[in-house]
Amino acid sequence: MKKVVTFGEILLRLSPPSHLRLTQATSFDLYFGCAEANVAASLSKFGLPVKFITAVPSNELGESSLSMLRSFAVEPIALTQGKRLGIYYFEQGASERPGKVVYDREDSSFSTLRKGMIDWETIFKDAEWFHWSGITPSLSLELAELCEEALLVASRMGLTISADLNYRPTLWRYGKKANEIMPNLVKHCDLLLGGIDESEKVLGVPKNDSDGEDIVFANWMKAFPKLKNIVSTHRMDANASSNGISASLWNGKNLLNSRRYNISHIIDRIGAGDAFMAGIIYGLITWPEDHQTALEFAVAATCLKHSISGDINLATVNEIKALMGGAGGGRVSR
Amino acid sequence: MKKVVTFGEILLRLSPPSHLRLTQATSFDLYFGCAEANVAASLSKFGLPVKFITAVPSNELGESSLSMLRSFAVEPIALTQGKRLGIYYFEQGASERPGKVVYDREDSSFSTLRKGMIDWETIFKDAEWFHWSGITPSLSLELAELCEEALLVASRMGLTISADLNYRPTLWRYGKKANEIMPNLVKHCDLLLGGIDESEKVLGVPKNDSDGEDIVFANWMKAFPKLKNIVSTHRMDANASSNGISASLWNGKNLLNSRRYNISHIIDRIGAGDAFMAGIIYGLITWPEDHQTALEFAVAATCLKHSISGDINLATVNEIKALMGGAGGGRVSR
Amino acid sequence: MKKVVTFGEILLRLSPPSHLRLTQATSFDLYFGCAEANVAASLSKFGLPVKFITAVPSNELGESSLSMLRSFAVEPIALTQGKRLGIYYFEQGASERPGKVVYDREDSSFSTLRKGMIDWETIFKDAEWFHWSGITPSLSLELAELCEEALLVASRMGLTISADLNYRPTLWRYGKKANEIMPNLVKHCDLLLGGIDESEKVLGVPKNDSDGEDIVFANWMKAFPKLKNIVSTHRMDANASSNGISASLWNGKNLLNSRRYNISHIIDRIGAGDAFMAGIIYGLITWPEDHQTALEFAVAATCLKHSISGDINLATVNEIKALMGGAGGGRVSR
Amino acid sequence: MKKVVTFGEILLRLSPPSHLRLTQATSFDLYFGCAEANVAASLSKFGLPVKFITAVPSNELGESSLSMLRSFAVEPIALTQGKRLGIYYFEQGASERPGKVVYDREDSSFSTLRKGMIDWETIFKDAEWFHWSGITPSLSLELAELCEEALLVASRMGLTISADLNYRPTLWRYGKKANEIMPNLVKHCDLLLGGIDESEKVLGVPKNDSDGEDIVFANWMKAFPKLKNIVSTHRMDANASSNGISASLWNGKNLLNSRRYNISHIIDRIGAGDAFMAGIIYGLITWPEDHQTALEFAVAATCLKHSISGDINLATVNEIKALMGGAGGGRVSR
Amino acid sequence: MKKVVTFGEILLRLSPPSHLRLTQATSFDLYFGCAEANVAASLSKFGLPVKFITAVPSNELGESSLSMLRSFAVEPIALTQGKRLGIYYFEQGASERPGKVVYDREDSSFSTLRKGMIDWETIFKDAEWFHWSGITPSLSLELAELCEEALLVASRMGLTISADLNYRPTLWRYGKKANEIMPNLVKHCDLLLGGIDESEKVLGVPKNDSDGEDIVFANWMKAFPKLKNIVSTHRMDANASSNGISASLWNGKNLLNSRRYNISHIIDRIGAGDAFMAGIIYGLITWPEDHQTALEFAVAATCLKHSISGDINLATVNEIKALMGGAGGGRVSR
Amino acid sequence: MKKVVTFGEILLRLSPPSHLRLTQATSFDLYFGCAEANVAASLSKFGLPVKFITAVPSNELGESSLSMLRSFAVEPIALTQGKRLGIYYFEQGASERPGKVVYDREDSSFSTLRKGMIDWETIFKDAEWFHWSGITPSLSLELAELCEEALLVASRMGLTISADLNYRPTLWRYGKKANEIMPNLVKHCDLLLGGIDESEKVLGVPKNDSDGEDIVFANWMKAFPKLKNIVSTHRMDANASSNGISASLWNGKNLLNSRRYNISHIIDRIGAGDAFMAGIIYGLITWPEDHQTALEFAVAATCLKHSISGDINLATVNEIKALMGGAGGGRVSR
Repeated sequence: MKKVVTFGEILLRLSPPSHLRLTQATSFDLYFGCAEANVAASLSKFGLPVKFITAVPSNELGESSLSMLRSFAVEPIALTQGKRLGIYYFEQGASERPGKVVYDREDSSFSTLRKGMIDWETIFKDAEWFHWSGITPSLSLELAELCEEALLVASRMGLTISADLNYRPTLWRYGKKANEIMPNLVKHCDLLLGGIDESEKVLGVPKNDSDGEDIVFANWMKAFPKLKNIVSTHRMDANASSNGISASLWNGKNLLNSRRYNISHIIDRIGAGDAFMAGIIYGLITWPEDHQTALEFAVAATCLKHSISGDINLATVNEIKALMGGAGGGRVSR
Repeated sequence: MKKVVTFGEILLRLSPPSHLRLTQATSFDLYFGCAEANVAASLSKFGLPVKFITAVPSNELGESSLSMLRSFAVEPIALTQGKRLGIYYFEQGASERPGKVVYDREDSSFSTLRKGMIDWETIFKDAEWFHWSGITPSLSLELAELCEEALLVASRMGLTISADLNYRPTLWRYGKKANEIMPNLVKHCDLLLGGIDESEKVLGVPKNDSDGEDIVFANWMKAFPKLKNIVSTHRMDANASSNGISASLWNGKNLLNSRRYNISHIIDRIGAGDAFMAGIIYGLITWPEDHQTALEFAVAATCLKHSISGDINLATVNEIKALMGGAGGGRVSR
Repeated sequence: MKKVVTFGEILLRLSPPSHLRLTQATSFDLYFGCAEANVAASLSKFGLPVKFITAVPSNELGESSLSMLRSFAVEPIALTQGKRLGIYYFEQGASERPGKVVYDREDSSFSTLRKGMIDWETIFKDAEWFHWSGITPSLSLELAELCEEALLVASRMGLTISADLNYRPTLWRYGKKANEIMPNLVKHCDLLLGGIDESEKVLGVPKNDSDGEDIVFANWMKAFPKLKNIVSTHRMDANASSNGISASLWNGKNLLNSRRYNISHIIDRIGAGDAFMAGIIYGLITWPEDHQTALEFAVAATCLKHSISGDINLATVNEIKALMGGAGGGRVSR
Repeated sequence: MKKVVTFGEILLRLSPPSHLRLTQATSFDLYFGCAEANVAASLSKFGLPVKFITAVPSNELGESSLSMLRSFAVEPIALTQGKRLGIYYFEQGASERPGKVVYDREDSSFSTLRKGMIDWETIFKDAEWFHWSGITPSLSLELAELCEEALLVASRMGLTISADLNYRPTLWRYGKKANEIMPNLVKHCDLLLGGIDESEKVLGVPKNDSDGEDIVFANWMKAFPKLKNIVSTHRMDANASSNGISASLWNGKNLLNSRRYNISHIIDRIGAGDAFMAGIIYGLITWPEDHQTALEFAVAATCLKHSISGDINLATVNEIKALMGGAGGGRVSR
Repeated sequence: MKKVVTFGEILLRLSPPSHLRLTQATSFDLYFGCAEANVAASLSKFGLPVKFITAVPSNELGESSLSMLRSFAVEPIALTQGKRLGIYYFEQGASERPGKVVYDREDSSFSTLRKGMIDWETIFKDAEWFHWSGITPSLSLELAELCEEALLVASRMGLTISADLNYRPTLWRYGKKANEIMPNLVKHCDLLLGGIDESEKVLGVPKNDSDGEDIVFANWMKAFPKLKNIVSTHRMDANASSNGISASLWNGKNLLNSRRYNISHIIDRIGAGDAFMAGIIYGLITWPEDHQTALEFAVAATCLKHSISGDINLATVNEIKALMGGAGGGRVSR
Repeated sequence: MKKVVTFGEILLRLSPPSHLRLTQATSFDLYFGCAEANVAASLSKFGLPVKFITAVPSNELGESSLSMLRSFAVEPIALTQGKRLGIYYFEQGASERPGKVVYDREDSSFSTLRKGMIDWETIFKDAEWFHWSGITPSLSLELAELCEEALLVASRMGLTISADLNYRPTLWRYGKKANEIMPNLVKHCDLLLGGIDESEKVLGVPKNDSDGEDIVFANWMKAFPKLKNIVSTHRMDANASSNGISASLWNGKNLLNSRRYNISHIIDRIGAGDAFMAGIIYGLITWPEDHQTALEFAVAATCLKHSISGDINLATVNEIKALMGGAGGGRVSR
């Protein structure tokens, strides 16, 4: 089986237990993760062979982040350089109090990566899919250039390429706007996860207020003709403890809509988008002709992620299929 | 006051804390319990004198299971034999992710019990009530025969007899179907907890799809003429974090229906049926002529159980009566 | 900036973790707080300079209670006398199971305070506001007299005075009824938090069953002409895990009503009233002419308190304003 | 088998985990125990039938203290009266930092006991041994009188009587000195645990500085002719983490000395004396003619207690015998 | 680099935290490990490529045991069969109280392995070393036969073979004595870890009481001429919290003795022998001509293991070399 | 009472609980502290009024670090600037395994401080003592210049000045050697804590191998004539769990030596030097003419610190005096 390659930073997450606020914490629970690493681990949990490309420092934190990936049977390919593992502090929200992320990720080992450091040809040799996200090019121009380097090689070697736009305004701080950088990268993609609100800011594709997903995504496909599928998730009636969730897929012809799930007791919403991303990658690999099933798999995956602590979706293919098949949580499985 | 005797296995339950999945656990919380033990502890908490008949290994786990029962003022009568205490691993569910039980209960001390090992005459001498459940005969033919032995003595000595059908298909694995074994045991019962879906599979009583509880339970009474009351619980709009609950009672004449409770934040649903069972036993002993009150007591008991960690209902008679009387959880009791 | 002075007892709170019942606890989480201390800490968190007047024993528990206050930048002025810090045990409720407080606060250091022990003139010298609550005079006649002593000095020195009626029937046990004591204290107040059900029992102001807040609060203003604002909170559709909350303010002319919040996942409801009290004090200091904004600030403050463990509201002014401005918890703040 | 009756207070102990100081605690571990309760539980763990006489409040803390005793198969006979369970806060020491107890036990339910409240005749009917300690008469004159009442009945009914002097100067605060009260109680005893330093202060028996145990204990026997055995423990080279321990027994003829144990890693030293007391009671019942063996059993019991968290010795008879027989902790028992 | 292959069972270990006894536990800490798995993980931590051959059940516990191995970069090759993962409960000792293991490992997945199920040729293809221990053949005749099967293939394919005798009398219960089985397996070994007390009982080699290691080990080499090195560890002045440790190596010519380490504060002694075993394998691979250095490496490795929680030695090659070079724990490494 | 001012960085410390290694951690315990902050908190605990000058980021971690200081009644004066709070990960050692610090403190808020940012005149107005340490000038040239700025003002305003050399080679990385920077700062000091090994490397004062403290410290006084006292601590027979400790003081005439303490069970050795520093500052303020008593106080303070978790010495003046007076930890204080 050919491999999925994902590329990105892995962060240490520090969270107070039991819904305590950051200023109340006398201990932090540890997790490791970040967008692309979460996708990697989830895909491996689904049974696909996965490599994760990153950089970590030569200390115990770097070592632990790789151990975590290995425990999921992900194969980490990590340059050991730089001085620190990036951190984010995460405070769980509840009801009307939003969750809160405090980033402390600057000057990380990952941020020291540059073009020419990674042997993409070797990495992609036994691979069929390459996944990246908008986090990496948001961090520095050098990382944006490294992304492009990877994308050029992956394109040339014929891999399917996917990206999650993952637009976080607070991260784009090196003097370039997202839409000055991202179009040049997105043009290599076959599959994109994003929302229509990001059309202009991230992709530079203008959008009228009244345009729906069908119109906007059609415009994206025009702007980036390599795109084959565009997916999007929708959160409704949300507070920090509950929301509805659904998703849509535009395949160039139709806008498919998924079932809606109501999530009444959110355990951890971090990584919900990454769970969806892994779900749609798995779905499109498994049911290449059945976009609706792929979409339903992805949205059921993200639904289950909300019930799982940490950044990574631990739901298995069987559990996701059971939820798709109508099984809710009302009965204990014995 | 005459005693209630319950008979069954007691298991060690191992659960990850804080809604973690089993594969995430770095520690397990310990509880001890299982169907009949949970009924015993709850009845003792209600103030009834209770004996619990079982077998445990001669090690710390066996000892701890008996200490737990003693802490509830239950009198355990336990043969010390066999090599291990049965275990079940329990993963709490949340929202659309169902809870999950992984059994590791084979070859337990309890499974080594045989006819002739237990002195039922002495045990029943000061007792008025005997309770068992369908778990025990599901484990082995020998345990089914031991059940029958107990039931014959209890019947002869005039005890009131109750059973919870507790039908779990994955447990019946020794070559007999439930409906080859259970009718011969249920025929001794005065009180039964079960659902109409189990009519054919467990009791061998045929049922048409359109038959309601009144018809099915009337048929059960025909098949098992000693039965005086049949009770059933109903879960509605359920996911792993919330559901509605109500119950019904057929006394041979009327089908009584209870109030419905909406439970919006389930802490632990394990043992909810046992809490109901203890509630209806206590209710029928306390209000033998007032079936509606007995039923309301039982359903309020199971409602409160959902808010309590562990297998055992810790609600007191006063707390249950307060809920029956309309007090919800909206106000802190000072 | 002139200071806010609050006066009252500080208690040790002992709570089982993870929704366990008191009888299940193998450990207790520690918090310190009580009505007026909670108001003090919240006001200091809002940025106001605050003193808290109390008495504690000369031991580690007394010391820790003051350290907690200092950690909030509250200046504690504490007589060190008496033999113990009062305690309350708190069991979190869930769904239909109410939370439960077991008091063990008698014979505390605070209860040994008497008139003449505290130098109110010095304390009030740099202050503009004095806050007390009905808890203190409920504890003993001597403490009621001490309250009056403080109120006379504060009135004479021209401080704005506020009180929370905080009526708890189980506390009034020294032979006086609340309405024999409270009117003589309330008459010094400019701002009062109370509910119309307390009109006769606490303030001795008769009330017809059909009287609404406008009528009752107008009568209170007649009885206590110094009053400028009366506020009240309303809890709706409540169980131990969720409720709605809103509030009203009577300023002698209009009855203003706040927005209603639905709280779907209560983390800790203790101190919700104190969070409101701090909110309205801050609101009236900040927006003295804009009662609606002051009220909305106070009700948003109490809404957020329900999501925070412990007695004290840790919400900041910015967080409260964000909620007032429409931000719910549905999106993680990064 | 006839029963051992012990009588005394049971306290809630609150301790910070992991050697934290009291002022650092964000949680407390819960234990229940106190001198005579610890003896009761240890004797029951040794297999003797035991009753424990006490008083507790009608709340969850009282209930939990009795559940703990029941979990050890001790039969608690508890009057439910008064308003609170006494508390002691315990800070574990380490190396040169001593452990620290902060008492908060005044006004407890136990302190409300009076002569005439307890039916000693019924309690002693099936008993052979009565144990008490000097803690109880130190608390109040009324409790000293209650002790005497119990001792008169026990003496009349022919029970063997033992006492632990347990002299704690900080407790004798009601206006009587220990040696005004204790001699009148000790005169009923057959077995006494005490140290020669307590001769004058507790028993009123004068002692020269140079007198050894043989001389002092012989004088005690003269003063209290009912005494048959006097035992004493000796701690050597002690800091909070390690010490040596040995013991002696005077039987009226010989001063027997035990083996010395070196304890290099103390887990919890609270209850070490109670573990010895239970050991010597068990020893003298089991080997009435072999005082040396009884003494060795008792000192091995107290040695093992130092390795066990909480007030109560959890060592079994077999474990103690193994240590007496030379087995140290150097090898894991499989 | 050629691989090391180890073969054996992996167990779930459940331990109470904080030196609590098993009967006190309200939670268990989870670890996975057992003799050969511990050797595998330690060797991988040293940087060698390692495969571990075993069998696990198809459930979360089996999955977690493999995740743990993968987190160490060990490659698990596990048959998924049978119904349960074996368990051992471990109670930490302290001072004079010995640690205690309660086994619950019967009927495990590993016990269902049989000859012919494992493709040893493929497994050994890229390997240079095979390690097994006396635990496996002690469990059943079938497992002893499977061991022999593996040894025959490994011998034929020219691997270096090592074994730890690991003699535990309580495990040999299937009707064969150790010395009826082990000689036939040991004869394939190049390296053996054992003690002279096991000479007759395990290897069937007679020994006089006065024979030292040089004589006994020379006899072993006569009996098993393939043996090149025999190593042995010695524990001195031991209790559960502290001991001395040293080791010796017989290479057919000389008896080399290691430095002695005094361990004053044992954190966890489980796996100390496995840490030594991994150390000597690494040592002999790294310094094939320098037996003294290999031995010093192994004994320093086991010394450090005593300071590490869990079954597995987490010490790195650099840390072990630092200890060999004289660095003790007296200075914090910054 | 005039104030003590200390100046330095405050770090977040993250430590695995229960002696786990960093790579085993699933949670971290939080502490805040660093050299000068530890001195500040300890002095405040001793009853002196203390200010602490630092810089922190505008986020929850910065806020919590100040709350911690306030909880000790230290007055923090903190510039809010820069982007992160520095971190150090700390792994507790045990026996022969050394403790380990992993620094992640670069680019912290404190590192953004520059000359001219702090109003030293105002800060020193009500102060009598200024304390700094060699950590600050080791971090950057800008911080060394800021140190000098503070020292010049403090000298001019007549404050007593103390420093702890705190030489950590791994920190001096900005291109200057310690002895190029430190002499220019140390020349302002009245009191110095250092060791003779640092003479050349830190102070540039040559030292012969055979020179004892009397010779070396006399040379220091020649080089830095403002010095009045030089103190030094000595650790003996050390591993990570136990060591001896003593100290010496050179006052220009005599070399005073302290008592030696043996610490057999180290809880936390971080901050031991800071505890000594606070002790000697307090000692010299309290007993300015009795250097021996001041020294004994300081060494007893550091002895007790080893028994306390976290960076800060929580020992009180009374506890330290009790230890000086001969009380060890062998007896529980009740």
